[in-house]
Amino acid sequence: MREDFDVLAAIGVTPAGGVDRSSLNDAHLAARKWFVERAAEAGLATRVDAAGNHSALLPADGPTLLLGSHLDSVPNGGRYDGALGVVAALHVLLAVQASGLTLPVELEAIDFTDEEGTLVGLLGSEALTGALAPETLQAPRGGREALVAGLERAGLQEGQLASARREAESLAGYLELHIEQGPVLEHAGAQIGVVNAIVGARSFSLVFRGAAGHAGTTPMDARRDAGLAAASFAVAANELVVRDFPGCVATIGDLQLEPGAYNVVPGKARVALECRSEDGIELERLATALLGAAQREATARRVELEIEPVGRWEPTALDPGICAAIEEVAAGLGLSSLRLRSGAGHDAQALARVTKAGMIFVPSVGGLSHDPGESTSWEDCVNGANVLLGSALLLAHRSR
Amino acid sequence: MREDFDVLAAIGVTPAGGVDRSSLNDAHLAARKWFVERAAEAGLATRVDAAGNHSALLPADGPTLLLGSHLDSVPNGGRYDGALGVVAALHVLLAVQASGLTLPVELEAIDFTDEEGTLVGLLGSEALTGALAPETLQAPRGGREALVAGLERAGLQEGQLASARREAESLAGYLELHIEQGPVLEHAGAQIGVVNAIVGARSFSLVFRGAAGHAGTTPMDARRDAGLAAASFAVAANELVVRDFPGCVATIGDLQLEPGAYNVVPGKARVALECRSEDGIELERLATALLGAAQREATARRVELEIEPVGRWEPTALDPGICAAIEEVAAGLGLSSLRLRSGAGHDAQALARVTKAGMIFVPSVGGLSHDPGESTSWEDCVNGANVLLGSALLLAHRSR
Repeated sequence: MREDFDVLAAIGVTPAGGVDRSSLNDAHLAARKWFVERAAEAGLATRVDAAGNHSALLPADGPTLLLGSHLDSVPNGGRYDGALGVVAALHVLLAVQASGLTLPVELEAIDFTDEEGTLVGLLGSEALTGALAPETLQAPRGGREALVAGLERAGLQEGQLASARREAESLAGYLELHIEQGPVLEHAGAQIGVVNAIVGARSFSLVFRGAAGHAGTTPMDARRDAGLAAASFAVAANELVVRDFPGCVATIGDLQLEPGAYNVVPGKARVALECRSEDGIELERLATALLGAAQREATARRVELEIEPVGRWEPTALDPGICAAIEEVAAGLGLSSLRLRSGAGHDAQALARVTKAGMIFVPSVGGLSHDPGESTSWEDCVNGANVLLGSALLLAHRSR
Repeated sequence: MREDFDVLAAIGVTPAGGVDRSSLNDAHLAARKWFVERAAEAGLATRVDAAGNHSALLPADGPTLLLGSHLDSVPNGGRYDGALGVVAALHVLLAVQASGLTLPVELEAIDFTDEEGTLVGLLGSEALTGALAPETLQAPRGGREALVAGLERAGLQEGQLASARREAESLAGYLELHIEQGPVLEHAGAQIGVVNAIVGARSFSLVFRGAAGHAGTTPMDARRDAGLAAASFAVAANELVVRDFPGCVATIGDLQLEPGAYNVVPGKARVALECRSEDGIELERLATALLGAAQREATARRVELEIEPVGRWEPTALDPGICAAIEEVAAGLGLSSLRLRSGAGHDAQALARVTKAGMIFVPSVGGLSHDPGESTSWEDCVNGANVLLGSALLLAHRSR
């Protein structure tokens, strides 16, 4: 498993030692290709569905137990996020294959398309579960142009993505091993995280439109500075979430000014806004409050505001039976475990709507993630893979 | 002149009807080529110097009276800024040529390289006056990469730029016709602006360095958000200049976040800061106050700050004798005139250090500039060109 993990970490490697496998870029496509070739060489069946999800299969007579994660990364991301779960799933199949066991379920190690959302977010898992809305594809987080170009690079047909849908009855469940991407397990000194819920998120593309003007001749009081409006909103959004929404987060992850020169007052500012909460009603209130603040700052700076929703993921509870199974397996392996929620979104959110879904976390050093410095000790990676194997076997036998 | 102006306006034209002739881009190089070819066809001598300044010449036995401006634009700029002054200068030479007059000065219509500063700012005029510092070329406003690429596209040698320098004794003076780029003439109902001073400017590239982190799992109080620090600074800078430096301006014209994704807390923010004042001591105080505010916001948000000065232009007084001559010529043509300062920088700043320099402004509709909507009535353009012609003749005869 270590060897495979290291081969993957070298595909799209960055100078800082992370990876750039943004959805459907060349490095991402190379990583996916490596995955199915590696599985085929080991004698597993492979499949690529209409949404580009890449799978390795250990066929059996029964419903499918999906074990998955994703091989895409954020633009300048780390080696563990997603990749660990795919490699571990592959090795669960290899271990079962080597043991000669016959299970009452088909095991499928699946690499979902575009989990991170540089294009859409949960694209592959939502297609598989029938939740991918055509509107989402019309206004994707990463912009239409990037989505169209990515699909073309990957040889995918936009009109066919939804046909990757599977019937709920064909599925026995879903298990995902993932790094925590936060500090909870490390702080608690726990080896295995048992995820009982995933927070919901909403994201918006905001455009502030003012008037470009000469930076030397436009007096301060005559400006309609779109960049200043966006900056004021960034400050207000931070204050608002800290003051009124404890436990929630709001992030302005990108901000682009036009025309973008030293000597021109910005006429346009594009802001990437995202917010998260574990409670659906609170998430709605938070989004409304943030958009209200954006409108107030726009008005105060005399600029126009356009709001485009570009992503919506509801808070999701994971299956209590699977949580208990993971705890049981961890205890059997002598590993300490802790129940926790996930602040990050995962393909498990999509799967939980149609089948029993569970997630296993392993500790992230310093809680760092979405950064080249992201790291998990190899011992923790192996612990996670063993819990994934044990949980898969337990669920397989219980599904009998 | 109208025909030539319209030909120029079509080179690098944008969908909104402005031009994108950023320094040394393909459209800018095409415009410069057109200029010398047009001059040569009309029987004028032409010259391109080591700094890429393009000239049309009407040789005579005597020092050179420079008439100039620039053909580059800001990234998404207007048709009048710079281009009007070059076309009018060319037509002053054509008018004198057609008249058969013999002047005691050589007339030179000059298109200076990179006035706007998408690369360096006043590159050509500072090279011609011996003020171009090698340090400036090492840390240019537009970045080294863009400068090196631009020089290569233009076939210019960085090591040779400074050899464009001319001796002060070879110059009889400098005159520039330009649109005002502000609202003063329009508000006053004056037809001709007589520029008595040009404000000074300083510009800085600021980098805020925090820690990238997962937008879902990094609690608000654990973040070191470089984008938030930059936004807080933008708000603070605006407050500071409005409150403490009336009549001055400060602009954040660009702001770039890294890695720049919805679900990543920005680890790095690059800010383009510029400030201007007509008083040298006030300009220094303003720059110091702004950089202090940047450091305070960086500290408050627990991020690092790097400051790189990328441009420094001192406030400049223009020649009182030329101001009086321009007024005299305008009055002789029955045009109303008004003395004013320029909030924008111009090549005249560089020239004023080595020779008598003057500037003629014509009104900008709505004060708009550095925008595709930039406009000046054609009547005002012709008025400006006639005042340029008359002023050139007056100065030529006075230099006898």
